Amino acid sequence: MAKDFSSREDNYSQWYNDLVVRADLAENSAVRGCMVIKPYGYAIWENMRDALDKMFKATGHVNAYFPLFIPKSFFSREADHVEGFAKECAVVTHYRLKKDEQGTGIVVDEDARLEEELIVRPTSETIIWDTYKNWIQSYRDLPILCNQWANVVRWEMRTRLFLRTAEFLWQEGHTAHETKEEAIEESEKMIRVYADFAENFMAMPVMTGVKSPNERFAGALETYCIEAMMQDGKSLQSGTSHFLGQNFAKAFDVRFLSRENQLEYVWASSWGVSTRLMGALIMTHSDDNGLVIPPKLAPTQVVIVPIYKQTEQLAQISEVVNKIKSDLEAKGVTVKYDDRDTQKPGWKFNEYEFKGVPVRLAIGPRDIENGTVEVARRDTLTKEIVALNQVADMIPNLLNDIQQNLYDRAKQRMEANTREVNSWEEFKEEIEKGGFLVAHWDGTPETEQLIKDETKATIRFIPINSHFEDGKCIFSGKPSKQRVFFARAY
Amino acid sequence: MAKDFSSREDNYSQWYNDLVVRADLAENSAVRGCMVIKPYGYAIWENMRDALDKMFKATGHVNAYFPLFIPKSFFSREADHVEGFAKECAVVTHYRLKKDEQGTGIVVDEDARLEEELIVRPTSETIIWDTYKNWIQSYRDLPILCNQWANVVRWEMRTRLFLRTAEFLWQEGHTAHETKEEAIEESEKMIRVYADFAENFMAMPVMTGVKSPNERFAGALETYCIEAMMQDGKSLQSGTSHFLGQNFAKAFDVRFLSRENQLEYVWASSWGVSTRLMGALIMTHSDDNGLVIPPKLAPTQVVIVPIYKQTEQLAQISEVVNKIKSDLEAKGVTVKYDDRDTQKPGWKFNEYEFKGVPVRLAIGPRDIENGTVEVARRDTLTKEIVALNQVADMIPNLLNDIQQNLYDRAKQRMEANTREVNSWEEFKEEIEKGGFLVAHWDGTPETEQLIKDETKATIRFIPINSHFEDGKCIFSGKPSKQRVFFARAY
Repeated sequence: MAKDFSSREDNYSQWYNDLVVRADLAENSAVRGCMVIKPYGYAIWENMRDALDKMFKATGHVNAYFPLFIPKSFFSREADHVEGFAKECAVVTHYRLKKDEQGTGIVVDEDARLEEELIVRPTSETIIWDTYKNWIQSYRDLPILCNQWANVVRWEMRTRLFLRTAEFLWQEGHTAHETKEEAIEESEKMIRVYADFAENFMAMPVMTGVKSPNERFAGALETYCIEAMMQDGKSLQSGTSHFLGQNFAKAFDVRFLSRENQLEYVWASSWGVSTRLMGALIMTHSDDNGLVIPPKLAPTQVVIVPIYKQTEQLAQISEVVNKIKSDLEAKGVTVKYDDRDTQKPGWKFNEYEFKGVPVRLAIGPRDIENGTVEVARRDTLTKEIVALNQVADMIPNLLNDIQQNLYDRAKQRMEANTREVNSWEEFKEEIEKGGFLVAHWDGTPETEQLIKDETKATIRFIPINSHFEDGKCIFSGKPSKQRVFFARAY
Repeated sequence: MAKDFSSREDNYSQWYNDLVVRADLAENSAVRGCMVIKPYGYAIWENMRDALDKMFKATGHVNAYFPLFIPKSFFSREADHVEGFAKECAVVTHYRLKKDEQGTGIVVDEDARLEEELIVRPTSETIIWDTYKNWIQSYRDLPILCNQWANVVRWEMRTRLFLRTAEFLWQEGHTAHETKEEAIEESEKMIRVYADFAENFMAMPVMTGVKSPNERFAGALETYCIEAMMQDGKSLQSGTSHFLGQNFAKAFDVRFLSRENQLEYVWASSWGVSTRLMGALIMTHSDDNGLVIPPKLAPTQVVIVPIYKQTEQLAQISEVVNKIKSDLEAKGVTVKYDDRDTQKPGWKFNEYEFKGVPVRLAIGPRDIENGTVEVARRDTLTKEIVALNQVADMIPNLLNDIQQNLYDRAKQRMEANTREVNSWEEFKEEIEKGGFLVAHWDGTPETEQLIKDETKATIRFIPINSHFEDGKCIFSGKPSKQRVFFARAY
């Protein structure tokens, strides 16, 4: 299986693409930049979605659904917002096709031109704030804590499966509040929810901070983010939460009667994560043998492969396996028993290793005699022999161990790849090795841009609640109060 | 609450619209024909989706995700299909906006015209069969049993919330099979799944049959459907499942190497239900006091309202309520305790009645003294006094009773509204009263069209496995072998 599959060292980028396609996660479609998410990939995304959805609901949010299309005029209302998205909008101009009178095909019916063009949503602030206008009269109508799971379109020129696609799936939370403090608190709460999800479900350690003005969401006053370190030393922005101030309330004239009986503009936040997280998950844990999926998100946590020559042996094995399977299922473990006779055990071993199933059990006639089973773990590629009557009890712990081990490994890598640098020479040298460079910066967008032009590195985030220290900007030599985190990024 | 709200008798259509908007289910958006599904409406849809999704998975299906856009040329490949959908397609022609050089707004950038226009999917057969082409080589790759949950767009001229909107949410199953028999079996299996869901979750009795050629899905050889009878005597098509033959396989050249080592075209089915089911649910059960939601789909199954004057009374009541609440939750019942002090009990009673919460408990100081609680059911609007220590045990049964009662009521209505007619005069008279008219038809599209032109009634379905009887077409007098079901429809 892994024979004609690139290794990380040979070609990291090719390794990623091969993995996504061959592990049946996703593939490119006939539509430029749009992917097909295949059943195995979608099953992982469903697990992510369900876990996140529970966390959103536990923090008081409800789901709703807003239109796919946004009238063009809505877009112009918030100046920064339109500036940020205008260059990558898919535009609907007509609502009918007709038979080509000259030819055999179909053509756009020019009589069916829309009076106002519709934008396929790249994000929904504008259409949602137009809706909120009718929902909000007084402080009693606040807060509004809505989320939607949806598809969005951003016409990116260079696309990569999961990491950057023209259409992607995501959730976008849009909240409305009485006060500035409450809106900031919400933005901060949600970035913590994302960090919690990344670390506890994806086993992916993240750094949390705020973006520099250059990297802020179009229309936000502050953008909080989580950043994760990939195996090639590049950072991947994995989730963002924005404090939007009153920008959208002003653009859509959304005011409320306050407790003091004053008409005031509403305060806002928005926050989102997308199928990009699939890319982050894959790149954080997988290896040259294929995918590695953390148990908490694996569609199949345990696969059981029977090893037999005669049909009677299979019957005997199946009896034992069915008992183990139902014991495990009673403990909430998802188990697949692959007793197909069309594939050999070796093929199955490769297949499930490649697809990242956390635990594999193998049972043959000898095991039945000895009352044992072979337990193999995907993360370490190690095997052990376990007594049949103990296996169901040990698996939940083993899954926890694997989850923890994956997190620890990634955490170690992130830490090993994070270092302070104190001069421009050092910066230029170290950035080639990848990782986070923690350095002083003079706080100006100009310096950030010059650093980017020369090294392709950007400020991934400015730490919050970090200790301040006086220093000099590595690039300009001007004074700085705080180190920030630079990296090359996806 | 219900004061300025239309009754069914006064204006059925207005009653429906009022209900949808005032019960916070959905509302029209700024985009023509596109709705906003509000949190309460979406919570019901989520319950429907989750129940259906489980049923699909239990019958061996997996979820995947295919692109929102379909290249225009794909559309022309299957002649009937394009014929059926061309007139209602939203078309993307450009991928960029820019600042208006003459004005202050933004305009479509004419330099960013797509080489080939993209259609926003009205249904996904074409893009999916283009994908399946690469997934299928041999019979070993079959069957493929994929479903997707997605938004689709059909540019309808006259729209109504949930019943007919330009954008709607749905699921679409697309399956690929070795044999004709298997594909037919799949189409029939899925219409049974839909009927099962409608009857057992929505408490909505349905009739199952096949469509006449006039009403078939564009590109199908056979369309199976479930039809439900609304309170105004109109039929509502609630789900369809299509046997597509080899039409799409031929259009996209999808062939497989058969067990006999022959290259053969693949057989297909597709099937879907949509947010239209929300309209069906609302119209099946609701009354002049507002929504009625069957317990199995209700976001809140039981609401508890405290009745008190002093704060100490509330503390005492809350203690009792919290015990009942946790007992009920342990039994899987969803409970809301509304102890807000900003609204009076009477307001809350109206609110939850209007929103269709199946059971309401009310507890005051007198109840605490007597060890009782008032239990009110939404379906019958009746109340009874129950001992506090029995209430948690009786609620699950009560919810089942309500579910059953709603089904029985709707079933009775459907039966009372179904009658045989035997002459054209009778047909014309009876169709004005609504309901299903079971009549002989000569089997020609021409007759069906003439009947529709004169009475607005269409053949809703042709029964399957029904007994055959010789008769004469009510319209043409020509011979007929079987009665079919006519009705006016949504």
